[in-house]
Amino acid sequence: MENVKISKVVMIGAGNLAFHLSQAVKRAGMEVVQVYSRTEESACLLGNLLGCSYTTDNKGISREGDLYILSLTDEAIVDFSNKLDFSGKIVVHTSGGLDMDVLKGVTRYYGVVYPVQTFSKEKEVDFMKIPLCIEAVNESVKNVLFDFAGEFSPELYSLDTPRRRKLHVAAVFACNFVNHMYFIASEILKSENLPFDLLRPLILETANKMNELSPFAAQTGPAKRNDQLVIKKHLDLLSFSPEFREIYRELTGSIRNMQEKKNN
Amino acid sequence: MENVKISKVVMIGAGNLAFHLSQAVKRAGMEVVQVYSRTEESACLLGNLLGCSYTTDNKGISREGDLYILSLTDEAIVDFSNKLDFSGKIVVHTSGGLDMDVLKGVTRYYGVVYPVQTFSKEKEVDFMKIPLCIEAVNESVKNVLFDFAGEFSPELYSLDTPRRRKLHVAAVFACNFVNHMYFIASEILKSENLPFDLLRPLILETANKMNELSPFAAQTGPAKRNDQLVIKKHLDLLSFSPEFREIYRELTGSIRNMQEKKNN
Repeated sequence: MENVKISKVVMIGAGNLAFHLSQAVKRAGMEVVQVYSRTEESACLLGNLLGCSYTTDNKGISREGDLYILSLTDEAIVDFSNKLDFSGKIVVHTSGGLDMDVLKGVTRYYGVVYPVQTFSKEKEVDFMKIPLCIEAVNESVKNVLFDFAGEFSPELYSLDTPRRRKLHVAAVFACNFVNHMYFIASEILKSENLPFDLLRPLILETANKMNELSPFAAQTGPAKRNDQLVIKKHLDLLSFSPEFREIYRELTGSIRNMQEKKNN
Repeated sequence: MENVKISKVVMIGAGNLAFHLSQAVKRAGMEVVQVYSRTEESACLLGNLLGCSYTTDNKGISREGDLYILSLTDEAIVDFSNKLDFSGKIVVHTSGGLDMDVLKGVTRYYGVVYPVQTFSKEKEVDFMKIPLCIEAVNESVKNVLFDFAGEFSPELYSLDTPRRRKLHVAAVFACNFVNHMYFIASEILKSENLPFDLLRPLILETANKMNELSPFAAQTGPAKRNDQLVIKKHLDLLSFSPEFREIYRELTGSIRNMQEKKNN
């Protein structure tokens, strides 16, 4: 495995992450030799985009790759790992939460390349700014994976499974739950026919603040100031949605806890 | 009140919003004649920054202004309104949640200029990109306020109190609660000594997505995919904080509700 340089990649999966990662691999000068997906539609879409063959039959997966990237749901990765044999090949998965060792029956050379990013097919993304967290079964595979990942991102981190998992939970808060806050905000605006545009500068500034301030230092608003009059009024205004009201109450309480802990 | 053009502003308050707004007013070529704050320290800081006089005595507030901006907590605005008489002057407050009419005892010419943004003294902000929501007691005051606000932002909206209040609740979700998600993420990372840098590109991309996609279309992650294996694992990993665990559970449930409603 020493001095191996990845030049041919087989992409197993055609979801949002696979969609962007396979294009980054191609742009970095490597060849994506084949795309596999369970569904004809996404296999075909990505295969055509990359100008390579595709298959929906796991028995039809090419043996020509140096590297096989399993970019599927956690369940599907486990399922695949029990079915496939890629002895002699390097195989990685891209999951934030899944044990590296689920791949140990597939090959002796396995690892993980987890990009800390959110991917939607409709939205371009610059891989050069994406931290990639790498784990490998041994040092020589790790070196190969660092060389491979370094072709399309300068932000490489070595992270074992327990730390990668914790990072993945943190990412759910920083991305999925944040996005859900945007969703709730948009629903509140809709109830008054107000345009979402009103919040775009606020959303960007709130994120941009993280380049200069800690989340604790950046916090503002009624919960931080413990402005009970405003908080009560807001809870009244949210009576149209018991669900949003409860989330408001809980997050306000959690911000108060944060303030009180830091002040003591 | 017709054809009045604001040239002299008195800033009542020296908090984060007053700090940035008064500088924007000055940069737009108007004069800030005086700053009032309850505390000597913040009055002095902002007065010196603007090169104007300051006071901590509400009886010492200058009569020279054309426009008086009350940029205080909601409670302090109400308190001030009961104490002060600015007959003949234009007076506005900058609160998202407070009735315009709390000012009606202060002058006949009153209104609201609410900037939809989060302000921290340590962080520069471009007023040209901040939506300003304006309300006024009558058309002529509204015209004066639109002219005034138009000097430092092109994003002007006319919004009555009930709609401004709803917008303010939405802003708490889009900003304060989002920031709290960043805080929780940072605490989770700290528990493994992982650097916050790992999440910065994700945080920016999650916000940037809002320029192209709706919050519903932008959502990704285990809750959206209803990936129960991952969700269960995440709840286990959060056992170190029952508070964060409960927030994870509740927001995951809320994302599921969103998906199910939209799919029906």
